[in-house]
Amino acid sequence: MDTESTRTGPDGTARTGSVVGPRLLAAAVLLVTLVGVGVLRTVGAPGPAAAAAPAPEPADAGPAIAAADRPDGCVTPDRRIQLYAVELPKDPITKQVRLGYGLTPQTAAYPGPTIEMIEGECLAITLHNQVPAATLEALRTDPNHPVAVSLHTHGVKYTQQSDGTLHSNSYVAPGQSRTYVWFAKPRNPATGSQGTAGYWWYHDHLVGGPHGTKGIASGLFGALIVRRQGDPRPDRTYVTAFGDRQTINLRRSSEADTCDEQNPVPGPTCLVARLGERVEFVAIGLGDDMHTFHLHGHSWADSRTGVVDGTNRALVDSVPVIDNKTLGPGDTFGVTVLAGDSVGPGHWMLHCHMQFHSDLGMSTMFHVLNPDGTMPPHPAAAPTGAKAASTGTGANAAPAPAAGHANHHS
Amino acid sequence: MDTESTRTGPDGTARTGSVVGPRLLAAAVLLVTLVGVGVLRTVGAPGPAAAAAPAPEPADAGPAIAAADRPDGCVTPDRRIQLYAVELPKDPITKQVRLGYGLTPQTAAYPGPTIEMIEGECLAITLHNQVPAATLEALRTDPNHPVAVSLHTHGVKYTQQSDGTLHSNSYVAPGQSRTYVWFAKPRNPATGSQGTAGYWWYHDHLVGGPHGTKGIASGLFGALIVRRQGDPRPDRTYVTAFGDRQTINLRRSSEADTCDEQNPVPGPTCLVARLGERVEFVAIGLGDDMHTFHLHGHSWADSRTGVVDGTNRALVDSVPVIDNKTLGPGDTFGVTVLAGDSVGPGHWMLHCHMQFHSDLGMSTMFHVLNPDGTMPPHPAAAPTGAKAASTGTGANAAPAPAAGHANHHS
Amino acid sequence: MDTESTRTGPDGTARTGSVVGPRLLAAAVLLVTLVGVGVLRTVGAPGPAAAAAPAPEPADAGPAIAAADRPDGCVTPDRRIQLYAVELPKDPITKQVRLGYGLTPQTAAYPGPTIEMIEGECLAITLHNQVPAATLEALRTDPNHPVAVSLHTHGVKYTQQSDGTLHSNSYVAPGQSRTYVWFAKPRNPATGSQGTAGYWWYHDHLVGGPHGTKGIASGLFGALIVRRQGDPRPDRTYVTAFGDRQTINLRRSSEADTCDEQNPVPGPTCLVARLGERVEFVAIGLGDDMHTFHLHGHSWADSRTGVVDGTNRALVDSVPVIDNKTLGPGDTFGVTVLAGDSVGPGHWMLHCHMQFHSDLGMSTMFHVLNPDGTMPPHPAAAPTGAKAASTGTGANAAPAPAAGHANHHS
Repeated sequence: MDTESTRTGPDGTARTGSVVGPRLLAAAVLLVTLVGVGVLRTVGAPGPAAAAAPAPEPADAGPAIAAADRPDGCVTPDRRIQLYAVELPKDPITKQVRLGYGLTPQTAAYPGPTIEMIEGECLAITLHNQVPAATLEALRTDPNHPVAVSLHTHGVKYTQQSDGTLHSNSYVAPGQSRTYVWFAKPRNPATGSQGTAGYWWYHDHLVGGPHGTKGIASGLFGALIVRRQGDPRPDRTYVTAFGDRQTINLRRSSEADTCDEQNPVPGPTCLVARLGERVEFVAIGLGDDMHTFHLHGHSWADSRTGVVDGTNRALVDSVPVIDNKTLGPGDTFGVTVLAGDSVGPGHWMLHCHMQFHSDLGMSTMFHVLNPDGTMPPHPAAAPTGAKAASTGTGANAAPAPAAGHANHHS
Repeated sequence: MDTESTRTGPDGTARTGSVVGPRLLAAAVLLVTLVGVGVLRTVGAPGPAAAAAPAPEPADAGPAIAAADRPDGCVTPDRRIQLYAVELPKDPITKQVRLGYGLTPQTAAYPGPTIEMIEGECLAITLHNQVPAATLEALRTDPNHPVAVSLHTHGVKYTQQSDGTLHSNSYVAPGQSRTYVWFAKPRNPATGSQGTAGYWWYHDHLVGGPHGTKGIASGLFGALIVRRQGDPRPDRTYVTAFGDRQTINLRRSSEADTCDEQNPVPGPTCLVARLGERVEFVAIGLGDDMHTFHLHGHSWADSRTGVVDGTNRALVDSVPVIDNKTLGPGDTFGVTVLAGDSVGPGHWMLHCHMQFHSDLGMSTMFHVLNPDGTMPPHPAAAPTGAKAASTGTGANAAPAPAAGHANHHS
Repeated sequence: MDTESTRTGPDGTARTGSVVGPRLLAAAVLLVTLVGVGVLRTVGAPGPAAAAAPAPEPADAGPAIAAADRPDGCVTPDRRIQLYAVELPKDPITKQVRLGYGLTPQTAAYPGPTIEMIEGECLAITLHNQVPAATLEALRTDPNHPVAVSLHTHGVKYTQQSDGTLHSNSYVAPGQSRTYVWFAKPRNPATGSQGTAGYWWYHDHLVGGPHGTKGIASGLFGALIVRRQGDPRPDRTYVTAFGDRQTINLRRSSEADTCDEQNPVPGPTCLVARLGERVEFVAIGLGDDMHTFHLHGHSWADSRTGVVDGTNRALVDSVPVIDNKTLGPGDTFGVTVLAGDSVGPGHWMLHCHMQFHSDLGMSTMFHVLNPDGTMPPHPAAAPTGAKAASTGTGANAAPAPAAGHANHHS
């Protein structure tokens, strides 16, 4: 169980199992159901081997955390992880500098690893700044600004020492490390303190200026998911960050979908699921612009969990079901759908509905496979306007060479 | 009942009654209350005759729908309608090309007809593309892009064959037809599948490019309302689409209000109701920009239905009551108000609160009449700052020639 | 009690107690708990003396309100207040004209006084236009537009006579006065009429044009809070208006935080609280642009009251907890937090997360003091990447001269 629960999935996602710590053993029964999450279960060829994950570090292995560094309620970290900030190859198209966070330097990427917590957990994250100083210097707009990266997070609790901001001096120079402590505080109805369960993001707050604008634009961000015990669990999770220059996950349409239909490898550029799987998208807004998250064929309840489980009709009716949601910079929300629910398998567009954004490249596909991992061919072209004949399905069939298909990623 | 239930109202709205199909007879009692909806009941002169609606087509009259074209849960369509895409006269001010959907070619307009469904219903819509090929060619930005229109919808369920997208080949060449199948799937608590009740829109996804940007900008869109059985029913429904160039329903202020106070004809450019009527606005965001929907004197619960019926105080308190809501492209929501509730009759501004948008023309009026259909005169001018005297009401009185009144549409 | 309940706090906020009128005596027990609200209870030096507030005007002291001026449900005003529109000194940085509303001419400011009501209350506000005619003329874009100011409000009920708009002639020429009547209508479940409790704003609708764009941009706006009886009460309230040129409360970063750490005076440019206090922020969007409200270290339930009190898990789970929220012009919402909850004292950034907005100055600090009114020093600089040592706290200690601290207001 431990091995499974702490390894990193093929999409770079830190598995939920890794939250298992001394205080959370009671949740073990729940977590057992998560083994295998993230793997397209019966697709023929296996994906690339999961990156070698560091051995789980016992929660008590690190140095003691000073009292001023611990948010109230965190006696000692339940879990410790390492996070590396590294420079990645420049963007192949724009030649822009790319930075990424990773659980290992080798697996750093943009977005960074999705971190999951359960309410009640306290997590210590040691950030290692491996970005060259010259790179950070070149991104500065003010020569007096520190050459550093940081880790700032949304939603969970942390003291000033873990704020990741300039004024709190909670940043990391190149070659150095710093430990940040996050606490997924549970709800306390007695005081009116809300819980921290939700969909959040973490990001740099230092690179380029006091708001980390250059760090975020370069890729130093990732999703943070906090669940309540008993929350519905997804079969897979995808992060979709809507950013400047009309990008999803900092990639424009031509690079935003890299799915090999013969062997789809789930990840930030290959959104794929099998019919009926519960899929969770984390939508993140970043940068300078407004966007909307729109998914074809699917809708979701605009609640914290994406579902409404109550049997109270008034409650159900108070929560809108939507398929398009506005997303400003810093906003995050979760979208939970059943892949292909009622609509079947196929290539379902996921795009910003701001028209010039989608036209300029803010569009990708959510590929829903048959339960056996095959994808039905595209419907035949309908140049005469006749309704396309039902063409059945084929095992991993290549798409029919129909008019328009070549454009489906553009 | 059938005649009533399938006719088109003076505002081009497909009446709810038209959803009556074999599977929905149980709802007949409910629907009886809808007869006469949309008519200003006691206003003197009748509005223009309702467009001659096509005879209701029995749900079983059309060709069989192939299995791959039916979303799961739709065994056979409960209802079939025809939808025509046509070219309309150019915008009188901007000379922009205008396209419209209509239940008949003669009644095509922008926005197109409001389509209503009830959860559980399956609807087959045959789209006839009557737009000249030359018009569509001129709107293309890419010479390899098909010359076609399509029908894409939000919220309800449909297979790839009814997606209305380029990559699924589900579009219609000029002179051709294609049948799209929509299913208003009900909630299934057992699977976590949400219902489809809500406020949605349908639109072209092909004209000009793979996101239908030119089709939408030209007018190929309309509202789709899905209700749960038991949902509160409005006395009248208005669609207000907030679009580029600071328009409401693609019209700027000077054309956005055409109400004849002597004989107001409800429609997309004449938002009018009698005191106490339950009025539903469908707000649609489209184009390239953000907007906000603001209505003077009225507010609504930011819930799915616009009301909160629960007697649970905690639930009531969890739902904000608002009078201004941000609207991104692709967003849709419903606003339900009681006309003039507490505030009385008068000319209530409905505008985008983005200041330069309202200043440039994104503003219209919601005219609330007395219960007898009269409108009180405008309060007298107050150039001296004295509080305007109460001037009483007059039957269909012409507005007092007060300072400022001439501007009330600008 | 009366003296306490009607005085103006040091931040210009009209105290809730001032809502006490003939119809609200039953709420007196509730209001007793509010005495002293808004005062940093044990900070050494007192703040500047509260502006001399006008003696409370008995609710029955003013002239009768004509029937056409009273929203339905308001028989007679429960309370009357005076509001003055005045010209203030030009913005010291931009030299822009500044106007402000005040409960007295001497206390006029931007934002104007926060007005609180309780559902059921009817309030008469007499607006005195003391802005020089020449100033208003210079702000006009159309020479035919009246030279006047007005008072338009969101959320509560008012007739056309109190709409504050051009077409209703409900504005005020220089040197004149006009009485506006607002009714905080309670919920009526029988009719589906929602209550008016919520976070709203009031603003000019006349200066410069028919949407009051110049009046709002100059400072003629303020917050309106309507509570239901039994709503949670804050210990202090701050208004944060997000406006053009990337300002909070029309001030950019360098002027947006004027806190003297030795003697913080709560107000629109000094957001300060003691650990554990319940703090309510009213977020207002205005102008031409979108923004997001983000607060470090704190989150809130996205409900009407900012909290979810229900013991119903499904309800609790349906309300997202967030720390960043999109805000369009005209939008308003409340944010209720417990200062420093779990995260402790410190300087917590409050900024727009649109990156170029925060970089250009749309950022300030929420200063959370220890319960005894002291502020811990900033953590030491961490240039070597070592985790900052816990430095303890000092009574009113000056911040440590750490790197970066000098920037914490920029």
